[in-house]
Amino acid sequence: LKLWDKGKKLDGLIERFTVGDDPELDMELLRYDCTASIAHAKTLERAGILTNDEVARLTGVILEAQEQGLVITREQEDIHTALEEFLVAKLGDLGKKIHTGRSRNDQVMADMQLWARDRLQELSHALVNVCEGLNGFSRSHPAAMAGYTHMQRAMPSSLQLLIGSYIESLFDDLEILLAVYVINNRNPLGSAAGYGTNLGLDRDYTAHLLGFEGSRNCIYVQARAKHMATLFFPLCSIMKTLDRVASDILLFTMGEFRYFSLPDEFTTGSSIMPQKKNYDLLELIRANSPVLHSLAHRLDMLGMRLPSGYHRDFQLTKGAVMEAFAITGLSLSIIERIFAHLEVNEATMKESMTPEIFATDRAYELVREGVPFRTAYRQAAESLSSLEVPEDILAGREILQFSDFSEEIRALRERLRLLFAS
Amino acid sequence: LKLWDKGKKLDGLIERFTVGDDPELDMELLRYDCTASIAHAKTLERAGILTNDEVARLTGVILEAQEQGLVITREQEDIHTALEEFLVAKLGDLGKKIHTGRSRNDQVMADMQLWARDRLQELSHALVNVCEGLNGFSRSHPAAMAGYTHMQRAMPSSLQLLIGSYIESLFDDLEILLAVYVINNRNPLGSAAGYGTNLGLDRDYTAHLLGFEGSRNCIYVQARAKHMATLFFPLCSIMKTLDRVASDILLFTMGEFRYFSLPDEFTTGSSIMPQKKNYDLLELIRANSPVLHSLAHRLDMLGMRLPSGYHRDFQLTKGAVMEAFAITGLSLSIIERIFAHLEVNEATMKESMTPEIFATDRAYELVREGVPFRTAYRQAAESLSSLEVPEDILAGREILQFSDFSEEIRALRERLRLLFAS
Amino acid sequence: LKLWDKGKKLDGLIERFTVGDDPELDMELLRYDCTASIAHAKTLERAGILTNDEVARLTGVILEAQEQGLVITREQEDIHTALEEFLVAKLGDLGKKIHTGRSRNDQVMADMQLWARDRLQELSHALVNVCEGLNGFSRSHPAAMAGYTHMQRAMPSSLQLLIGSYIESLFDDLEILLAVYVINNRNPLGSAAGYGTNLGLDRDYTAHLLGFEGSRNCIYVQARAKHMATLFFPLCSIMKTLDRVASDILLFTMGEFRYFSLPDEFTTGSSIMPQKKNYDLLELIRANSPVLHSLAHRLDMLGMRLPSGYHRDFQLTKGAVMEAFAITGLSLSIIERIFAHLEVNEATMKESMTPEIFATDRAYELVREGVPFRTAYRQAAESLSSLEVPEDILAGREILQFSDFSEEIRALRERLRLLFAS
Amino acid sequence: LKLWDKGKKLDGLIERFTVGDDPELDMELLRYDCTASIAHAKTLERAGILTNDEVARLTGVILEAQEQGLVITREQEDIHTALEEFLVAKLGDLGKKIHTGRSRNDQVMADMQLWARDRLQELSHALVNVCEGLNGFSRSHPAAMAGYTHMQRAMPSSLQLLIGSYIESLFDDLEILLAVYVINNRNPLGSAAGYGTNLGLDRDYTAHLLGFEGSRNCIYVQARAKHMATLFFPLCSIMKTLDRVASDILLFTMGEFRYFSLPDEFTTGSSIMPQKKNYDLLELIRANSPVLHSLAHRLDMLGMRLPSGYHRDFQLTKGAVMEAFAITGLSLSIIERIFAHLEVNEATMKESMTPEIFATDRAYELVREGVPFRTAYRQAAESLSSLEVPEDILAGREILQFSDFSEEIRALRERLRLLFAS
Repeated sequence: LKLWDKGKKLDGLIERFTVGDDPELDMELLRYDCTASIAHAKTLERAGILTNDEVARLTGVILEAQEQGLVITREQEDIHTALEEFLVAKLGDLGKKIHTGRSRNDQVMADMQLWARDRLQELSHALVNVCEGLNGFSRSHPAAMAGYTHMQRAMPSSLQLLIGSYIESLFDDLEILLAVYVINNRNPLGSAAGYGTNLGLDRDYTAHLLGFEGSRNCIYVQARAKHMATLFFPLCSIMKTLDRVASDILLFTMGEFRYFSLPDEFTTGSSIMPQKKNYDLLELIRANSPVLHSLAHRLDMLGMRLPSGYHRDFQLTKGAVMEAFAITGLSLSIIERIFAHLEVNEATMKESMTPEIFATDRAYELVREGVPFRTAYRQAAESLSSLEVPEDILAGREILQFSDFSEEIRALRERLRLLFAS
Repeated sequence: LKLWDKGKKLDGLIERFTVGDDPELDMELLRYDCTASIAHAKTLERAGILTNDEVARLTGVILEAQEQGLVITREQEDIHTALEEFLVAKLGDLGKKIHTGRSRNDQVMADMQLWARDRLQELSHALVNVCEGLNGFSRSHPAAMAGYTHMQRAMPSSLQLLIGSYIESLFDDLEILLAVYVINNRNPLGSAAGYGTNLGLDRDYTAHLLGFEGSRNCIYVQARAKHMATLFFPLCSIMKTLDRVASDILLFTMGEFRYFSLPDEFTTGSSIMPQKKNYDLLELIRANSPVLHSLAHRLDMLGMRLPSGYHRDFQLTKGAVMEAFAITGLSLSIIERIFAHLEVNEATMKESMTPEIFATDRAYELVREGVPFRTAYRQAAESLSSLEVPEDILAGREILQFSDFSEEIRALRERLRLLFAS
Repeated sequence: LKLWDKGKKLDGLIERFTVGDDPELDMELLRYDCTASIAHAKTLERAGILTNDEVARLTGVILEAQEQGLVITREQEDIHTALEEFLVAKLGDLGKKIHTGRSRNDQVMADMQLWARDRLQELSHALVNVCEGLNGFSRSHPAAMAGYTHMQRAMPSSLQLLIGSYIESLFDDLEILLAVYVINNRNPLGSAAGYGTNLGLDRDYTAHLLGFEGSRNCIYVQARAKHMATLFFPLCSIMKTLDRVASDILLFTMGEFRYFSLPDEFTTGSSIMPQKKNYDLLELIRANSPVLHSLAHRLDMLGMRLPSGYHRDFQLTKGAVMEAFAITGLSLSIIERIFAHLEVNEATMKESMTPEIFATDRAYELVREGVPFRTAYRQAAESLSSLEVPEDILAGREILQFSDFSEEIRALRERLRLLFAS
Repeated sequence: LKLWDKGKKLDGLIERFTVGDDPELDMELLRYDCTASIAHAKTLERAGILTNDEVARLTGVILEAQEQGLVITREQEDIHTALEEFLVAKLGDLGKKIHTGRSRNDQVMADMQLWARDRLQELSHALVNVCEGLNGFSRSHPAAMAGYTHMQRAMPSSLQLLIGSYIESLFDDLEILLAVYVINNRNPLGSAAGYGTNLGLDRDYTAHLLGFEGSRNCIYVQARAKHMATLFFPLCSIMKTLDRVASDILLFTMGEFRYFSLPDEFTTGSSIMPQKKNYDLLELIRANSPVLHSLAHRLDMLGMRLPSGYHRDFQLTKGAVMEAFAITGLSLSIIERIFAHLEVNEATMKESMTPEIFATDRAYELVREGVPFRTAYRQAAESLSSLEVPEDILAGREILQFSDFSEEIRALRERLRLLFAS
């Protein structure tokens, strides 16, 4: 039976349409639904609605459900119904008391926020691990190479400067993630269907039990599309970084560049062309940015033009959020793995440093002799053919050398530890 | 073994990442892969690469695979590998000949285009069925009601005018669909990896066998993200129509309006509020427009900034296209079902026709007496309080009466029959 | 004064916010507002509301306004107000009659549809011109080159095959455009605010006068966001084609490829690097695809979740549509210009044809000797080092030779002539 | 002359296409270009490239330019060229020295980041002002009303709970904004074209002069599309909040609700219907959310799939960012103004509290008598007809009473003061 069952059977097509893929998605929420249910039961006790003994018995059976797992039938629709029915089956009338003072509206938000909190923590660690991997890769690969602008060789650059740009990009992504972590960490329980109850539930107590920093306004809890869209900010940011990383490597592994390569166990072949060695996994990282962003756009749209209060439209946010975290987490893992195996061809990189990319240096030589830059620029433009690659490319360019991010990484790890412990 | 296997085992994480959900998605493509494979075999025969007997034997086993179904293992990655391995298992060396002169690149496009052709045909029929249902609903529900602009009651209108607007909107959607049908119906086979072969395959013959109108330029075949994005034009158009339908009904079933209602077996309840009767299925129709459009945006992005030729990014178009057709088809079915059961409350509709919405008519009375409209407008504005609801609301407004679309619907059915038969 | 003025002055900030940039945008609509107004006046005459003489006088002054141009003040908000005030200033009470039986709602749609009809015609011609230019370019540039998949050299290809892929892509775009042209060409006038009038206006007559094919359902006329979004289908399609063209050229002009180059008057430089020659205009074509698609997404969103009837939200569609047509038209012009000056470096193209891209041919040689393809594939994979570039690359590959599209282009021109003449 | 002029004139169409609307947009950047140029000159002095006297003379003329304003010609393209030419005109060779060690690439980023810093500060203050306005509105409007779920009356609620949900939503938006503020506040200068220089410029000194917290990796500076997309996070978040506010008011001002109204000077009329009073400004707030989000999507797309380094595509981010900040700032102002004048109809609000929305309370009565909730729910469902509106609606619902945010607002003002002062 559905929680709202009133004796009428739902049309079959309609049931399929409304239930959707919740039974599958909700499997991921079981442990969070259990955690939130226990905290809710304790809050009911404090309000005098359940006895201490009732809470103990409910808690026992909830933990039993969490441990053994639940199967969610389509008739049940969701994890919330499955858990309540499990409690009723085991505890009879006592099970029928668990939903006092809550609605699926606040229950889903509690589950999703607890779920997201764990995912954000995991993602933070994964991100810092990637930074550490990149830093190690950078340390061991001093290599000069051409820097490009407008798809054309432009200036002397280095692999270490490039890797540093990835690390700083991820640092920014983490900054957004941590702001979102704080925003996510507010208690939704007690808001019930969005307008609270008259049962005198102590929301601060529930917040405390669940590790939330205070409670959210009841109506605002139900702005679910916005809350879920907020979770996308760091994900989009990370995928933008990884898109750039993948685009760089895909360009630089082309036969015309050969700055990088990957061992065979990281590449794929063609069903028709015997010679092909394809960097599919980088193409898929690159392709996951559109996928991720399209999910973010979905969330942007799902909340549009809806008056306050819960709407069933919000149900469709769940799958998108879960897919998005999975994509981002997996992409970070792949990138970490790639840099553990990426082979650098320092010789071809060096060859990319053709004389003309030193034209600006030539202008600066003239500047040092007192020629105003704009004049020097025009003179250098006229003597391009006489340019040569200098002996010491790095002269005056500390910027192209290894910049060690170990200290920042250590500090970030400490910051995560403190934030997540609270 | 994968088709491109060269003896190196793919890293586990990488395999999971690159294979993705193709094994599941490809189950839908089996019959199309079989159809395309048989046509390809016949083309190989015409080119002197296979004998008539070989084609017969291949055809037999291909049909066997189609009938019994194939299980696609993750090791196999996709339906194309599974089918080739099935042929090899049954026919030995002969099975190893089927991939001569083709690549998975053109094979996937052949499968997807044949698949899309069937889906577009189904969708066309479903759309016309909805139009027929709407026309019947309109015929039997003459009811005057207020027309709204800027969310405010504005002018006298009618349910029949409103339903007519849905029908015409669907007609436009079908127009786009049929243009896309024609564009989709071009043979991709023979393009192999995107640059053809030197085997002298007769592409026009393949096109003829598969019911395509001519063959596509080989490189253009591989602009897969664009081709798949083109399929979204009619889907987006249809969902825009259904979004408006759902938004209308959701507004007009609010307790403050009560123009419409649905029987209990089409509505859901609340886990906390005993009195609730929710129109979830209309909220989900409405929510499916963002979902659909976000998938379209995904396709828009997946093709961006890629040079010509196949990229693995394109693989991620498949799931989006399949999901999009499923959403649109299901939404049309739901809408058809809704209008078969929608209850109209003519009394509340009539009550919505408050006197002030006849203010423009009042101005027109003055116009008929010779007052210039802008002057009449200002005079009417000053006498709003004296307005009354006229006895005969429809007087001079044939536009508010039933407009029968039966003839157009019949003509569309004939047009579909001719186009799809060719 | 605003058309709806009732004596209260709008708050200053509010006026700025609501008027927006209509006064500027509407300058483009003057001639269409004039055309529509004359047709409307004639329809009023047929309904007995204006005399023949009044129509003649109105027509005269309307044409005067069209010829001399109108300045739209912010107080007037829009072209419709400016024109009505001009008529009142010149004709007194007669001018106050022009708005009888219409609303700005249907008037704006009439203007926009007439405007879009002209733009679609222009775009069609521009598109065919680009095809013709590409066909001429292709004819005079037989050049073999490597074909790429997964960003890697894959198979022998040719510039002519590549150009053919652009032409066919544009042909598809035109197919969508023409379907949209037909959908756009329906009369909105007579729908007034969206619910018609009781004045007995002959909408078919208006349609005839304006060259529309029949009239649209009154409420459907007001689904403006959908109508405007429909106009984006061909624009998005065209920009997808041009994105691919630009991405190809940008890759192939890189110093590592040098297949193409452009004369200096088509490239830009750097403020700091004297040697730079940048292909900004191709980067901007490429960048215009995101711009265009974001405008399309805007239209997708602007119509979401709105019940039937006009909403002020729709006003924000106008600027987006105008910008989108301008971008697309300009991009087509730039592409046409580029191909009139693109320099082809056949030598570097030829060098790109490295031996390994003939590996598939090697497998086919074995196939011709009777080896099953999958076995041949594996044998070829083992002898990659012995591959050589063949003397006659085109042998057996008619597909790489010039495919003349002159006939298709001629037929398209004729088709446009007939459609646009009707 | 353009900064990169080398004696070849750009094709006219190409110039128009590449220059775009930079001359107009850049007017907003003049003061930031001046500020950044002065800091750059001082850094050149510290590197021994300019003398103290030269810096003083440059600074004088730069401030002169800032004060008098500059006109940017299309030939000049942008503010950077206009300023350099102004310096050359006034100072001769000394003016030609200003661009030493910088590129327009880092210069544009410096301008945009300084510009964005000011805008983010303004937006923060505007947002807090709106919160203060809302808090005052809430304080003075204790009013019970129905709360809705699924577009249906659901539970007793209050205007004060609703307003609180707006305030908390804005608080979250501000949290994102401040994280973005910190990310934005990193020095880009010294990165030149993206790869630094060999001039030994002290980037930390430049950072100090401009109030930045440290300097960004040179290559990362050029990930402009990402940096600009990051600025959109708070803007999207704010517009999501305002969309909900506008959607609520638009629903609740409908004739069927009449909970709210606005004085005439905040509403508009119809050109045809004398009685209309339209809430256009709220429709436009609502419509600005799609506009804003489409600009965000543009930025998402503009950065996709580009390898590291500057691309001209990034130039198209500027207009979008400027438009987005303008929209958001204006929308906040409008909302503040609206709540200063919004009229509340407590009587119609009270009427919305129909008996059935107390069904859950009825179930809770049974719960208090010891009936398990799920049983109580079913019993309450059977006795809906006997429900009555209670005397004291707020009994047991402190949640529906005024929640004062004055203290949080004060703390936020202090937080802004400290952050922006640093």
